[in-house]
Amino acid sequence: MIYADNAATTRLDTDAFEAMRPFLLEEYANASQPYSFSRNVKMALRDARSTIASCIGALAEEIYFTSGGTESDNWAIKGLMRPGDMRLMITSQIEHHAVLNVCLSIERLGIPVRRLPVNQEGIVESEAFQTSISDQTKLVSVMLANNEIGTVEPISALAEIAHQHGALFHTDAVQAVGHIPVDVKALGVDLLSASGHKFNGPKGVGFLYIKKGTEIQPYANGGGQESGIRAGTENIASIVAMACALRKNCDRMITVSERLSRMEHIFIHTLNQAGIDYIRNGADNHIPGNINISIRDANGESLLHRLDLKGICISTGSACDSVNTKVSHVIQAIGIPKEYAQGTIRISFGADNIETDASEVATALIEILRK
Amino acid sequence: MIYADNAATTRLDTDAFEAMRPFLLEEYANASQPYSFSRNVKMALRDARSTIASCIGALAEEIYFTSGGTESDNWAIKGLMRPGDMRLMITSQIEHHAVLNVCLSIERLGIPVRRLPVNQEGIVESEAFQTSISDQTKLVSVMLANNEIGTVEPISALAEIAHQHGALFHTDAVQAVGHIPVDVKALGVDLLSASGHKFNGPKGVGFLYIKKGTEIQPYANGGGQESGIRAGTENIASIVAMACALRKNCDRMITVSERLSRMEHIFIHTLNQAGIDYIRNGADNHIPGNINISIRDANGESLLHRLDLKGICISTGSACDSVNTKVSHVIQAIGIPKEYAQGTIRISFGADNIETDASEVATALIEILRK
Repeated sequence: MIYADNAATTRLDTDAFEAMRPFLLEEYANASQPYSFSRNVKMALRDARSTIASCIGALAEEIYFTSGGTESDNWAIKGLMRPGDMRLMITSQIEHHAVLNVCLSIERLGIPVRRLPVNQEGIVESEAFQTSISDQTKLVSVMLANNEIGTVEPISALAEIAHQHGALFHTDAVQAVGHIPVDVKALGVDLLSASGHKFNGPKGVGFLYIKKGTEIQPYANGGGQESGIRAGTENIASIVAMACALRKNCDRMITVSERLSRMEHIFIHTLNQAGIDYIRNGADNHIPGNINISIRDANGESLLHRLDLKGICISTGSACDSVNTKVSHVIQAIGIPKEYAQGTIRISFGADNIETDASEVATALIEILRK
Repeated sequence: MIYADNAATTRLDTDAFEAMRPFLLEEYANASQPYSFSRNVKMALRDARSTIASCIGALAEEIYFTSGGTESDNWAIKGLMRPGDMRLMITSQIEHHAVLNVCLSIERLGIPVRRLPVNQEGIVESEAFQTSISDQTKLVSVMLANNEIGTVEPISALAEIAHQHGALFHTDAVQAVGHIPVDVKALGVDLLSASGHKFNGPKGVGFLYIKKGTEIQPYANGGGQESGIRAGTENIASIVAMACALRKNCDRMITVSERLSRMEHIFIHTLNQAGIDYIRNGADNHIPGNINISIRDANGESLLHRLDLKGICISTGSACDSVNTKVSHVIQAIGIPKEYAQGTIRISFGADNIETDASEVATALIEILRK
């Protein structure tokens, strides 16, 4: 099998699994309890928080553990955009459903939301943003990297504009953390969402960076965990594994990125040599290993299934969209012509892929297209 | 070490760990993806849902996976008590903080909440409930078993009264599921919360039972997981382990309960023989293995630390309350006199304890009290 769907989820790193194992088996104390049996759990929790903070240039106290990227996005937005406050939220047309659908839900509570268009590379342009924002804007949420086409957004420029107007800035960095350098200070964001399983950590765990001093409503009320704003017994095993995976991914980032860039090149070169008529979606500045293409007169779903028969896993769009054959909101937003749009697939290579995977997937795809 | 704090958390069952391992290591596909690599994950998810449903007398489609009991409680209440709806919510004075603090948060949105008193055994009395409820009551939330004193509430009677007035009934069954027989039909509840780590499953996973046809707002907006009302990539490894642990705990429930009852008897008998002046808190009908006592002129926190030095883990109250030395809301609600209340400790034996643990903990406690 060639797994080329790392944008949907990644394999749990073996070291991360080994890091979590003792907290599944022996160190099962509840971190909130005051006896000595919980000491190792408390220390591991503190260390994991510091590790994660150090990977994104944050303070440990600015990291709040959640159940994943979706919860982080829900918390960031619902925790700030409260019913009754009529100030505006601005987001983009190409956000993940975890942001898109939260925006729909707050709109139903009467909160105004504006959605910025993107250019053909999927980039939110500062000019459009400048004309939309005002001093009545409370929150801006634009993703750091798009989950379908991989485009990295100009967050630091957008955040600067937001701050000039007194608005807070949240970024869904689920697809970016562990894959490209992420520094919350350099980005200038107030909130940042991430998910463990997108960078070789476990599923069911993530974090939200909340800049010190940011006033946000608690997401889950209950016990005093996570400084009293995200209650629930700490998922220590998964938290430890997530920290281990993130540290490892950051340490090997340059090596892995270089290999993934070579693989992209091989893949595209092979496709070009075969004379396939396609559009490559996304910007030059994108998540390493992400190849999103729209093939003329093809059907993405059919390609996915034919590649599956050859033991190759790819995606037609975002993971959450894959039951749907309609053209994704991202492909629509970047204006891909109809005769190409239906034939959109996403190949996402990751740290576990080897270089020959690139030519193998390309060759398999060409074979299918020629039939 | 003797671990006698099973009401705070339990050791992950070894079979449950083995059940989760392949989904951590090999079967890492995202359950939402349509290729064959995700087939085992989809099947395991379906099986886990059926297993859990069968353990509580529900339909598989009525089980929604969450990140734990706190999320389940937050969802049940916040998903029903919406800003703008002025109908009443009724709860009890002795709920877990996950319910208590959600109630405080919805009160701040202007939603009225009434809290029922309990008798000296911690039982919510039907009479008080009858006088509080009206046709303007939307939701009643009373826990199935109390996390401090173990009292099992008369849920089926309370739910019947609630339904007579057209109100929905939620029960926080976090402390009960896997320990006493729980059947949603017999209880007559519309919603029920549970948490994996309280019945030898992993931390960071739980479920909410939502009776078919109950209209509830989504908790996390995003992808289409959990019938579109609780988004987020499925935490498959933990879900599988939770189902395995619950099935096993239900299968061994009678044997374990009988042993735990014998242990309670040994513990209490040993304390009585030594002439310790204490009050046992909770009702006759309580969670097996839960011993909550208030010792005259003692200090619970000090007892906890002295027992810790002898390698024994117990609690002074609920896990979330343990940083606090003030008398817990539950002990206050049942009216324990001041000279006893400060000396409250909770010993909670579980499936892993052996019978000699009971006399060992009692003897250690007596030794400390005599010093």
